[in-house]
Amino acid sequence: MRLRLDLAYDGGAFHGWAAQPGLRTVQGELESALATVLRVDRVAVTCAGRTDTGVHARGQVAHVDVDEPVLLASAGRSTQPPAAALARRLNGVLQPDVRIRDARQASDAFDARFGALWRRYAYRLVDRAEAVDPLTRNQVVTWGRTLDDAVMNAASERLLGEHDFAAYCKQREGATTVRRLLELRWERTPRGVLEGTVRADAFCHSMVRSLVGALVGVGEGRRGVEWPGEVLAREVRDPRVLVMPPHGLTLEEVAYPADDELAAQAARTRTVRTRTGETHG
Amino acid sequence: MRLRLDLAYDGGAFHGWAAQPGLRTVQGELESALATVLRVDRVAVTCAGRTDTGVHARGQVAHVDVDEPVLLASAGRSTQPPAAALARRLNGVLQPDVRIRDARQASDAFDARFGALWRRYAYRLVDRAEAVDPLTRNQVVTWGRTLDDAVMNAASERLLGEHDFAAYCKQREGATTVRRLLELRWERTPRGVLEGTVRADAFCHSMVRSLVGALVGVGEGRRGVEWPGEVLAREVRDPRVLVMPPHGLTLEEVAYPADDELAAQAARTRTVRTRTGETHG
Repeated sequence: MRLRLDLAYDGGAFHGWAAQPGLRTVQGELESALATVLRVDRVAVTCAGRTDTGVHARGQVAHVDVDEPVLLASAGRSTQPPAAALARRLNGVLQPDVRIRDARQASDAFDARFGALWRRYAYRLVDRAEAVDPLTRNQVVTWGRTLDDAVMNAASERLLGEHDFAAYCKQREGATTVRRLLELRWERTPRGVLEGTVRADAFCHSMVRSLVGALVGVGEGRRGVEWPGEVLAREVRDPRVLVMPPHGLTLEEVAYPADDELAAQAARTRTVRTRTGETHG
Repeated sequence: MRLRLDLAYDGGAFHGWAAQPGLRTVQGELESALATVLRVDRVAVTCAGRTDTGVHARGQVAHVDVDEPVLLASAGRSTQPPAAALARRLNGVLQPDVRIRDARQASDAFDARFGALWRRYAYRLVDRAEAVDPLTRNQVVTWGRTLDDAVMNAASERLLGEHDFAAYCKQREGATTVRRLLELRWERTPRGVLEGTVRADAFCHSMVRSLVGALVGVGEGRRGVEWPGEVLAREVRDPRVLVMPPHGLTLEEVAYPADDELAAQAARTRTVRTRTGETHG
């Protein structure tokens, strides 16, 4: 039986999503909590966006396969649906910096990683002392120089569409860096935070933080509005592109097609990104 | 020379506003930072809302008197206005959980405490697992039972106006507990947080947290919609009223009259609340 889990975490005290021996990771904590609650030896969880160290998530999605009798046994005498009872028990075992927001039975064709249509991240900065909020300092980067969001938007528009984002990715052997960037824009919130929305079919490693780094160079006036596009076109990493701090980045949402489209979507993605499928922030 | 300081803090690691020997307090940290930056022995800061341990502020206001030559000397060769240069230096000395958002010269009649027209606090709760956000767990209280905001609003309306709030205050010898409650209402944010807005001319000790505690009893269905008003009318503390956890409470805004009304407002307030003037959360 396949379950879909929706979860949120404060990435500040995690060494990213992916399980690593001896380090506190979201996958490690979640798989260990599932094993405890289900009373099994080992559970494997697959997620939509393998966030890096320090990156947050509000809309992370994962899937896990469990034996139905095991799930029913773990629910005990709960009157809730078994998946909801599981979510409640997981939240009792997990630390408060990671929360299961929803758990439900999914179609067997549901694949959190390969089935996703797109991932949406937010990057948040504050560039004025009067807007700095100590209450959100774990998720908004304080920037010492003033940023012009109009020129950042003009530069962002030039990056939209399907490109080889090699210039903005940490290369991995045999992995494609072609991605379709669907949305990239900047807005001031009522509290004066500069919020970037970055949406793509998928992301390669450090892609959002590098894109934002190039755009911040434009916003500060250090680079021209064409520069991030020129870097993109060269398809090689440019050491002048700053990789922004992880704590400004949050995975906000992952979108999936309707159930009857799930299998087709997963097959399409596998064809394009087999053996690679990087979906990092 | 009188300066107005606007500041924000995460109350989580502070033993409240008021300086106490051996404890980390906002007043203590701020006065010590001012003494360092101004190179003087001692500075006395007066604030609008003396928040309790664990209570946050986004819109705290304070005043401080400094000798003009001392301020000018501290600004050094800065090209900023001296008050702005002071804010910048204070932020360099203070820890990141307290930030000066603005500093400017104020009228001699400006009094952060007695001159305020009203204080506005927010109290934030989340009562559904799917809305719990680990990124804001320091400022939103997770509540295990579902709350009906419509009945909470109905109960809140009955508390508005000028009353003796003795039933909702920690009594202090010789201090009046008459306050004018100007606004008390509940709203769901787009992220599903239940946000209470509480605005009054001033507050006595633990007043907001006690009012919210009574209303949560109504929202849970444990108490009738008339109950918080009945408790108020009895003018004595009711042990059944819960004092809510401090980390859900944030001082959001303090309002002052225009400059030519400042002296009259301060005189009015002093007359009503001399020797008391409690303005706690």
